[in-house]
Amino acid sequence: MDQIVMTDAPPHPPSSLAEALFRPRSIALIGASADPAKNTSRAQRVLQKAGYPGRILPVNPARTEIFGETAYPDIRAVPRPVDHAFLMVPPAAVEQAIAGCAERGVRVATIYSAGFAETGEAGRLRQQRLVALAREGGVRLVGPNCLGLVNVTDGIPITNNAAVEAEPLEPGSLGLISQSGSMMGALLSRCRTRGLSFSKLVSVGNECDLGVGEIASLMVEDPATKAVLLFLETLRDGGALARAARRAHELGKPVIAYKLGRSELGRRIAVSHTGAMVGGDELADTFFRENGILRVDTLDGLVELPRLVMGRQPPKGRRVAVLTGTGGGAAMVVDRLGSLGIEVAGPPPEMRRHLAEQGIEVSDSPLIDLPMGGGKGQYTTVLREIVASDHCDAVVAVLGSTARLRPAQVNENILSVYDGSKPLGVFCAPQADEALAICDAAGVAGFRTPETCADALNAYLNWRAPRRPEAAEIPDGAQALLQRYGPRRLNEAEACAVFEALGIEGPGSRIVADAAGAAGLEGPAAVKIVSPDIAHKTDAGLVRLHQRGPEIGTAVREILARARAAFPSARIEGVLVAPMQQGLAEIILGYRHDPEVGPVVVLGLGGVTAELSRRTAVRLAPASLDTAREMIAAIPELRALQGFRNLPPGDVEALARAIRAMSLLACLPDGMVAEAEINPLIVRPAGQGAVAVDGLILPG
Amino acid sequence: MDQIVMTDAPPHPPSSLAEALFRPRSIALIGASADPAKNTSRAQRVLQKAGYPGRILPVNPARTEIFGETAYPDIRAVPRPVDHAFLMVPPAAVEQAIAGCAERGVRVATIYSAGFAETGEAGRLRQQRLVALAREGGVRLVGPNCLGLVNVTDGIPITNNAAVEAEPLEPGSLGLISQSGSMMGALLSRCRTRGLSFSKLVSVGNECDLGVGEIASLMVEDPATKAVLLFLETLRDGGALARAARRAHELGKPVIAYKLGRSELGRRIAVSHTGAMVGGDELADTFFRENGILRVDTLDGLVELPRLVMGRQPPKGRRVAVLTGTGGGAAMVVDRLGSLGIEVAGPPPEMRRHLAEQGIEVSDSPLIDLPMGGGKGQYTTVLREIVASDHCDAVVAVLGSTARLRPAQVNENILSVYDGSKPLGVFCAPQADEALAICDAAGVAGFRTPETCADALNAYLNWRAPRRPEAAEIPDGAQALLQRYGPRRLNEAEACAVFEALGIEGPGSRIVADAAGAAGLEGPAAVKIVSPDIAHKTDAGLVRLHQRGPEIGTAVREILARARAAFPSARIEGVLVAPMQQGLAEIILGYRHDPEVGPVVVLGLGGVTAELSRRTAVRLAPASLDTAREMIAAIPELRALQGFRNLPPGDVEALARAIRAMSLLACLPDGMVAEAEINPLIVRPAGQGAVAVDGLILPG
Repeated sequence: MDQIVMTDAPPHPPSSLAEALFRPRSIALIGASADPAKNTSRAQRVLQKAGYPGRILPVNPARTEIFGETAYPDIRAVPRPVDHAFLMVPPAAVEQAIAGCAERGVRVATIYSAGFAETGEAGRLRQQRLVALAREGGVRLVGPNCLGLVNVTDGIPITNNAAVEAEPLEPGSLGLISQSGSMMGALLSRCRTRGLSFSKLVSVGNECDLGVGEIASLMVEDPATKAVLLFLETLRDGGALARAARRAHELGKPVIAYKLGRSELGRRIAVSHTGAMVGGDELADTFFRENGILRVDTLDGLVELPRLVMGRQPPKGRRVAVLTGTGGGAAMVVDRLGSLGIEVAGPPPEMRRHLAEQGIEVSDSPLIDLPMGGGKGQYTTVLREIVASDHCDAVVAVLGSTARLRPAQVNENILSVYDGSKPLGVFCAPQADEALAICDAAGVAGFRTPETCADALNAYLNWRAPRRPEAAEIPDGAQALLQRYGPRRLNEAEACAVFEALGIEGPGSRIVADAAGAAGLEGPAAVKIVSPDIAHKTDAGLVRLHQRGPEIGTAVREILARARAAFPSARIEGVLVAPMQQGLAEIILGYRHDPEVGPVVVLGLGGVTAELSRRTAVRLAPASLDTAREMIAAIPELRALQGFRNLPPGDVEALARAIRAMSLLACLPDGMVAEAEINPLIVRPAGQGAVAVDGLILPG
Repeated sequence: MDQIVMTDAPPHPPSSLAEALFRPRSIALIGASADPAKNTSRAQRVLQKAGYPGRILPVNPARTEIFGETAYPDIRAVPRPVDHAFLMVPPAAVEQAIAGCAERGVRVATIYSAGFAETGEAGRLRQQRLVALAREGGVRLVGPNCLGLVNVTDGIPITNNAAVEAEPLEPGSLGLISQSGSMMGALLSRCRTRGLSFSKLVSVGNECDLGVGEIASLMVEDPATKAVLLFLETLRDGGALARAARRAHELGKPVIAYKLGRSELGRRIAVSHTGAMVGGDELADTFFRENGILRVDTLDGLVELPRLVMGRQPPKGRRVAVLTGTGGGAAMVVDRLGSLGIEVAGPPPEMRRHLAEQGIEVSDSPLIDLPMGGGKGQYTTVLREIVASDHCDAVVAVLGSTARLRPAQVNENILSVYDGSKPLGVFCAPQADEALAICDAAGVAGFRTPETCADALNAYLNWRAPRRPEAAEIPDGAQALLQRYGPRRLNEAEACAVFEALGIEGPGSRIVADAAGAAGLEGPAAVKIVSPDIAHKTDAGLVRLHQRGPEIGTAVREILARARAAFPSARIEGVLVAPMQQGLAEIILGYRHDPEVGPVVVLGLGGVTAELSRRTAVRLAPASLDTAREMIAAIPELRALQGFRNLPPGDVEALARAIRAMSLLACLPDGMVAEAEINPLIVRPAGQGAVAVDGLILPG
């Protein structure tokens, strides 16, 4: 019978990746069990329950039939084309199975099996072999160590997740990609309680091949998907995710991320200060913002934000109008908004006049305090005016006991007049499940707690269109110089030469081989050993400042002697003699090609105190002058440079130009520079520039 | 009939304040309406519905009977003793009513009527008159502008709150005091959903007389109340609340506060730097911590924390053990705990060995990853070991899909073995209402979101016993000097003299009247105008630094001339000549008698950059040397003083002694010093002390 079908079957042209991933015509379940008590039996049960219209092909050497379907001893024995394979075999058997998939022309294999990179070095090597095998055989992989995926739109669950089996799968418009398998089920249930349904769900596991970014790219092209939620533990391929997010923006589909904040920072060994200064979370923030991804800080925010932003574009400003029937309830939201730097915008005079003409008096305080039950449609009149007004970018309605005691008023007073022209969030201070359900059913964003309400508004108000790629080129001279030096760690003088070629004033320093080389120098000068093998030069007594005339030669001699004695095996390239520089601020300016988010430029404070305070600003590179100015403004201590109190203003523009120049290292071919740092960059008084005193460059 | 009852009634001895407040034998409802559609009819309805066993005495000049009770035209006409009056009359009629209450010997009047201090100056004066009248007449007041109170234990609601009417009032063990009336209802409903019930609820409104502190004192003595929740918008009388909290600690009753963070900072006009530097929220944090009050940051935290802490004492350390069946779910909690500085403690080697002997292998990672369904009681064995172990102060169990799909496992795996000897929080990653209800019913703390789970644990782990009052005395000389100066703003030299008398090294400065007075001084010196009427002296060019020899006299002459020209009406007390001081750090050290929390000592960084960074530590004064050291450790930039990198260590001990000395101003009689500041305090290298260069003292 199978033979006949096969012969008569229409030709099975290769499907697209998206089709094979989400809408395979046939699914092999490799390692399927016939024992209903086993996890490995669930995938088939779930597919059958969902009424999957394609062919289910269990593979199990011990059975000829499982739950009514013919079972095959090996994927190679399956007598028909297979679009997608779901692997539930022990880790040691995965390679064999993938080889079989390659032989049979399986397009996508989703690997539930664990025991790969997540388990340590041996597993990492096993995973590498797996990827090589799959690449060679033309099989794309999801996982390993993942819970599979669900095409809810078409009723195709490829997973053995118990949560998916337990929850009814109502098709909806949210896509979800989760690095945590268990959170796929947790979000499914949390969203369901709030009437939110999904289009596609993917647990990506170890992301050995198809990762968050590539899957997001496929998801945003899916017509059923109107917004994409990401549950992230880390960023593995920022570039791919950035492309997906930019495309999502073009298509008007918000991408919303919850990301665990603790990063792999400890695992990154950073040589420069800036490397150590920038936490992974700050980088991720920058990455999300500049690529137009909304970031929530709370789990419920991930559930409650979509309704606030679906079908919308980023806002113009960061202003919220708040209409409330409860002082305490509104204060909780406003308090958080305030601490997030969001402006609560009171009604403008014109609106107050207009309302007064209709007999509605509102004060000029930021909150509009108006009970919902207030007679004569006052509430609806005010709400309509606020939603239509330009003085705010979003509106929050805070409900008190009305939400619990008379939930139907939400319909009468809010939903009946709200035209959706501006985001509206409804926060219910009491427990008010019915009022929230009314909002949910109407597609209006309802919030259970003041914290998630503020979190979601903050995410929306921080939302910006993806930053357009900077039209930037690196000066030819800088690239030529780097090529001449070759791929090695550059010493202080070489690095400063590159920075000068980028357009950043250099210190006018020179490297001398001995005291004689310093003859005739007047100073005051800084004298410092040059060696790639000595890390903490100041701590080792190999730096002397403020040396004048003959002191310089003496310093060179003594530093050389001390270095040779203390670090006998260190390569010593000479002694740097640099004129002492004075200015108004000491800056650390860094560049790094981050493995997760790509090239970034980092601005930080110099000096020891500043190092302890760890205040930095980071942006994707290359950065425009405007972005550079934004970075300067983001560090409170640098307000001193703008002429704070009676301090002389510093050359902020020169600092901005230096930031921009440093960021141009991103225009180099990949791998030429992994990390660069100027430390310190001295900012002089306005009009007198900024000078790179010292620095380093590391190859990729 | 009434007459007869009155004559025959047993004598009505004066009741205690607590009795009159919470358990009055008779309640007059002044302004009660007979129209069920009116808010003012609700109080009576609610009392009747609750089956109040005492006498309900409606007062309404237009009626002789309301809802079956005799109504009286005026409180004066009520023919029987009245313990408690509830006022719902227009604001203008409140005074008359209170006068009547005083005449009739009413012990407590709760004023629902609004239109007092919350409305502005006229209302504030009206409220003042009210308080004076009540004091004179021996009537204690709750409100005005409050929603009343409920004694749930005895079924006595004295309120016209719609939420109270709507919710069934199950007696429980939580007391609630709310500055927001509407939040009383909101919390009632939120707690009810989680199976938490109240003993007493009080909406305190404007707190014109009985405030949060005094009511909390009454509540903690209530045997039915096992924990007190506070919903605070501000702190009005920190002293009273501190006393209540300390007594609560003696009785083993946790006090848990949610406080809006934005303070009335703008309303406080602070002359000194430190005044402006310390936000109200930081002060409140200090106040809560030092008085043993637990503070939550989230609304749900207020609902979910009580079960974690009721009946408990503050923890020894800040270590949490986490047992989880879901990586992603646990990571969300741990991520937040980490950012709150809480240690996640993995199983100690001994425990791992012990478990291994029972065939249970757990890794040494901070999280114990163990599915609940794991066979042979592994989960219960591990949980029992952790709860019994000394390596952690609290335990979190994170549940994945089990919580939703097989909630009964919570009983089998957690509740059956948990002996309550250590706080246990259960966080359910999916929507798991049933599992939470099982926890709720068992009195175990269940958490709906990772954020509130971390918030509650943080509140518990930050919890400390109230700091014992410091045995401290101010040196006689300092007090005598202050008395000699009298209650006025002290100039720089006078202030420094007081600081010297407190034990803080002074600058050796002197005030000269003219250039001749500076003759013979060598410097280098700082020269500065002395005037109580000139605020920003440096900005006005009235300070010169590093003056030597004859430069000093010239500077004195020029500064005097410039000051007289620029500030012709300013009182000029002379010119200060102070030796220039050098050191390793510039500190601002402040003291203030905060109107809300009482005397505090504030440590901050000096210099302009530091002013922009606004990093401070604040503690209640007087502070011990240990507390002073804790303050120093709390400012990251001051780690430089401990000998960071190759920097010379500073005299941290001298700084600590100076903090302690400054804090002794709190031992003065009330009102002698409102604010004091040393700016800068220069910290010299270790062993060389710290010197107060400049300062000011303001009277109370």
